[in-house]
Amino acid sequence: MHVTAARHLDDGVLERSFTLGDVPGVLWTPGSPTAPVPLVLLGHPGGLQAVYPRLVARARHSVAAGFAAATLELPGSGDRPRSADAEGARADLRRALAAGEPVDAEVVDRLVLPLVEQAVPEWRAALDALLALPEIGGPVGYSGGVIAIGVRLAVVEPRIAAALLFAGSRVPRAVFEEARRVTVPLLVLLQWDDEGNDRQEALDLFDALGSAEKTLHANTGGHTGVPSFEGDDANRFFARHLR
Amino acid sequence: MHVTAARHLDDGVLERSFTLGDVPGVLWTPGSPTAPVPLVLLGHPGGLQAVYPRLVARARHSVAAGFAAATLELPGSGDRPRSADAEGARADLRRALAAGEPVDAEVVDRLVLPLVEQAVPEWRAALDALLALPEIGGPVGYSGGVIAIGVRLAVVEPRIAAALLFAGSRVPRAVFEEARRVTVPLLVLLQWDDEGNDRQEALDLFDALGSAEKTLHANTGGHTGVPSFEGDDANRFFARHLR
Repeated sequence: MHVTAARHLDDGVLERSFTLGDVPGVLWTPGSPTAPVPLVLLGHPGGLQAVYPRLVARARHSVAAGFAAATLELPGSGDRPRSADAEGARADLRRALAAGEPVDAEVVDRLVLPLVEQAVPEWRAALDALLALPEIGGPVGYSGGVIAIGVRLAVVEPRIAAALLFAGSRVPRAVFEEARRVTVPLLVLLQWDDEGNDRQEALDLFDALGSAEKTLHANTGGHTGVPSFEGDDANRFFARHLR
Repeated sequence: MHVTAARHLDDGVLERSFTLGDVPGVLWTPGSPTAPVPLVLLGHPGGLQAVYPRLVARARHSVAAGFAAATLELPGSGDRPRSADAEGARADLRRALAAGEPVDAEVVDRLVLPLVEQAVPEWRAALDALLALPEIGGPVGYSGGVIAIGVRLAVVEPRIAAALLFAGSRVPRAVFEEARRVTVPLLVLLQWDDEGNDRQEALDLFDALGSAEKTLHANTGGHTGVPSFEGDDANRFFARHLR
């Protein structure tokens, strides 16, 4: 893990940009660390620069509640090399949504499954590096989308103790089977009127998830309209399970 | 409003049993009132004595958060006179559930609609009496079931400023239309594995409710298995809207 830039935000939070191999990432920690804190991994749709304003708001909110927060750029997003297959699938998805047509399950598979295959080992490698820092103690929570990445991480990565899954992206068919193997406490967040999402698919995935403790929070509004009080709910959820 | 008994609970909360005409009810207020507080009406399935343990726990939790709480016995429950029609419908409902058969919409109508017609004017009369007390200031929230009673109160009673609706009872067809006219902020609580409930019907009702701000909290578990953290969430919901 190579720190490429560090600065203090106006609320004192220490923001470090880093690279792990050729994958860029960002780490946010308390400005004046005392004891090691648990870590929340912030999922996002890809494109760190574009999502930065929302991401840094989530990170500040997490740090204010006593956590560290970190994220990685996704494969094929930002400055990372594109995959022709994924770009083709993304174009097919956008075409179907723009035409108001149903999205082929095969298109969702082509778009999401390779992303999960490539991203999850990168996030696990980031965990190795982040948890080696003295100011981060664990346990670890995952918070956000891509939901298929969150499901895979929750299944394969024993350091993930709880997950907030944002049901704002399409779900490959294979992920419904995988979801049954999730056992950590879950908070699933669904925007009821998400333009690009399939509400029934999200509810079916919530039903499929295997965890004994799982909660769904659904709110009116579109993809980016998550109410601010859900940030507080997220912190309380992680406080229950990461402390 | 005639107070028939008053006592302080061990945490200091003042519990007053009362009758309003021939309808029994209970009021819980802070032991040492300072300023008038908002009021939360506690809905329940009927039978005050049987539900008292859960009800008093909810009431204590509300009072600890700075509210008064009150409830009324439902028509046909506790010591109140039975209706032969409602008893017949209840027997039909239980028979269908025990046999694992679908419940006729007509049975739900016969059971719930007369209950709503009779109960809602009683709760409104209770509001007149309760809001006349110096220690209660308003505004008012409704919290709990019967969900059709909560929907009707939210539509017809302008003093209701927010409602937490427990989706744990069957919904007459006419209530889906009525739900579109609800405009107050809503938190809908659904037990995902509720034995006697229809999950899809509850989700359809959530979708039908007209409020611009509405949130669904769904949790694993049966009818009485609402997690304790939902009590805190309820208090925060009412704090946002009744203060």
